[in-house]
Amino acid sequence: MTGIHAPRSAAWESRVRDSFAAQAMMANMGASLGEVAPGRVIIEMPFAPGFTQQHGFLHGGAVASVLDSACGYAGFSLMDDESAVLTAEFKINFLAPAAGDLFRFEGQVIKPGRTLVPTEGRAFATKAGAETLIATMSCTLMAVRGRGLSG
Amino acid sequence: MTGIHAPRSAAWESRVRDSFAAQAMMANMGASLGEVAPGRVIIEMPFAPGFTQQHGFLHGGAVASVLDSACGYAGFSLMDDESAVLTAEFKINFLAPAAGDLFRFEGQVIKPGRTLVPTEGRAFATKAGAETLIATMSCTLMAVRGRGLSG
Amino acid sequence: MTGIHAPRSAAWESRVRDSFAAQAMMANMGASLGEVAPGRVIIEMPFAPGFTQQHGFLHGGAVASVLDSACGYAGFSLMDDESAVLTAEFKINFLAPAAGDLFRFEGQVIKPGRTLVPTEGRAFATKAGAETLIATMSCTLMAVRGRGLSG
Amino acid sequence: MTGIHAPRSAAWESRVRDSFAAQAMMANMGASLGEVAPGRVIIEMPFAPGFTQQHGFLHGGAVASVLDSACGYAGFSLMDDESAVLTAEFKINFLAPAAGDLFRFEGQVIKPGRTLVPTEGRAFATKAGAETLIATMSCTLMAVRGRGLSG
Repeated sequence: MTGIHAPRSAAWESRVRDSFAAQAMMANMGASLGEVAPGRVIIEMPFAPGFTQQHGFLHGGAVASVLDSACGYAGFSLMDDESAVLTAEFKINFLAPAAGDLFRFEGQVIKPGRTLVPTEGRAFATKAGAETLIATMSCTLMAVRGRGLSG
Repeated sequence: MTGIHAPRSAAWESRVRDSFAAQAMMANMGASLGEVAPGRVIIEMPFAPGFTQQHGFLHGGAVASVLDSACGYAGFSLMDDESAVLTAEFKINFLAPAAGDLFRFEGQVIKPGRTLVPTEGRAFATKAGAETLIATMSCTLMAVRGRGLSG
Repeated sequence: MTGIHAPRSAAWESRVRDSFAAQAMMANMGASLGEVAPGRVIIEMPFAPGFTQQHGFLHGGAVASVLDSACGYAGFSLMDDESAVLTAEFKINFLAPAAGDLFRFEGQVIKPGRTLVPTEGRAFATKAGAETLIATMSCTLMAVRGRGLSG
Repeated sequence: MTGIHAPRSAAWESRVRDSFAAQAMMANMGASLGEVAPGRVIIEMPFAPGFTQQHGFLHGGAVASVLDSACGYAGFSLMDDESAVLTAEFKINFLAPAAGDLFRFEGQVIKPGRTLVPTEGRAFATKAGAETLIATMSCTLMAVRGRGLSG
């Protein structure tokens, strides 16, 4: 499963990059878009002390936030020009503490539905050069049309 | 279902308040502990422009982060003095945009298991004096003993 | 939260009962509709030895199946005459073994959206006269229109 | 991610096959174990009219039941001789109607934890020779020791 699909908008990449740039929370976290393909998005982020929990690791909610954006933009990259993207729900499993210097978040579309778009995400932490899978996400997006929301 | 149960630690409330105070992300978001009872925790937070998504609402991940803390501390309030709390997984459903001036997050324990503690969370937004349910969470916590983590 | 809402179809109750009667799996399990209200549905079922797991309790999937139907018909009771109901996703937490003589499954709508309908379910087991909460479900339904599916 | 890991029990395969054979519901559905490896289990099942929903497709709960067993035995295959397996929770996303002649269910371990074992499942339907992904599952298992449950 590659997560690569045919885009419905010729401007899919700029739509993704412009919308990501408008997410104040991602900028605040120091998260940046990496590789972007139709149906697949990577976000990277260095360790951020302002987003930690009580043991000094990244807060699970911080991991979930970036994975939600990765899944959301993976889905948004396949939506048409009239659609905004909303997250209907997601589930996240935490596999290991979010300890490391650098974090990578992958979102990919499982099925490019016209209204509902199921996606999956994986988060990895790099510490001393070794990468560990720290969380998996299952996320349902909804394409919303004609409500005046810019993507 | 009240979410009120018998605590296993005499110091349950200070354990919850001290651990919450150590979550840098909650302070960064402007989130503060409200009412705390054994098995039930409330967190409040004003609108925070640094934690928004592309339409100017609170990011779904921000909502998830505070709900995760509300559920986590609801569970931690019932754990014994030897236990730290970890989130094994959570699922969140988004019901309405996180638009408003003030947000309230409730976490409560469904079953006070010794190792696994299932909890539920609800997030509400207040706008122009009216409160709306914006998200529901189902979360599984794990009590971790003897690993040298302070709660 | 009562789960009671205004129905969109005058025939909501017969639509629910007729569709439930068409679910071969529910009949096969011995499950029957109990109280039905707009946005809220109860299903009951005696212990069924043909639907057990390796320890002799009801299989978690059997519990999930009836909860899915309870949530599905709670949502379907609020849909218009043109809509069929599909389950987009659900999550279930298991709190106790499904041991007992009689089981009760409650489904209720959290928000009666026109396209997506988030619902919640609770499953209870009665053993020696005492009722125990054995599972909770969070379920997202989708109203599907004009595809020739009868509800 | 292959899902193949080192087993903790020399008898892992017979433990899996014996326990699966004790699940009355799987036999009732006509489900049978296919390929079994440490951390990865396949279950197959022909279409079963007694397990359908109102449109004549397999009930979502039936799909969930077999995926739960596939995930459960993938996890159980890595547990030690003292452990029984319980499902703590699962989430399932439905991608397409469960229409077809033959169904295949894959469960695989994501991380072989000693107490909690996160797993993932995929369900496929074969119709007229073509296979379609119809559902994905994210499931958390728990290894339970010393409670007198046989696996």
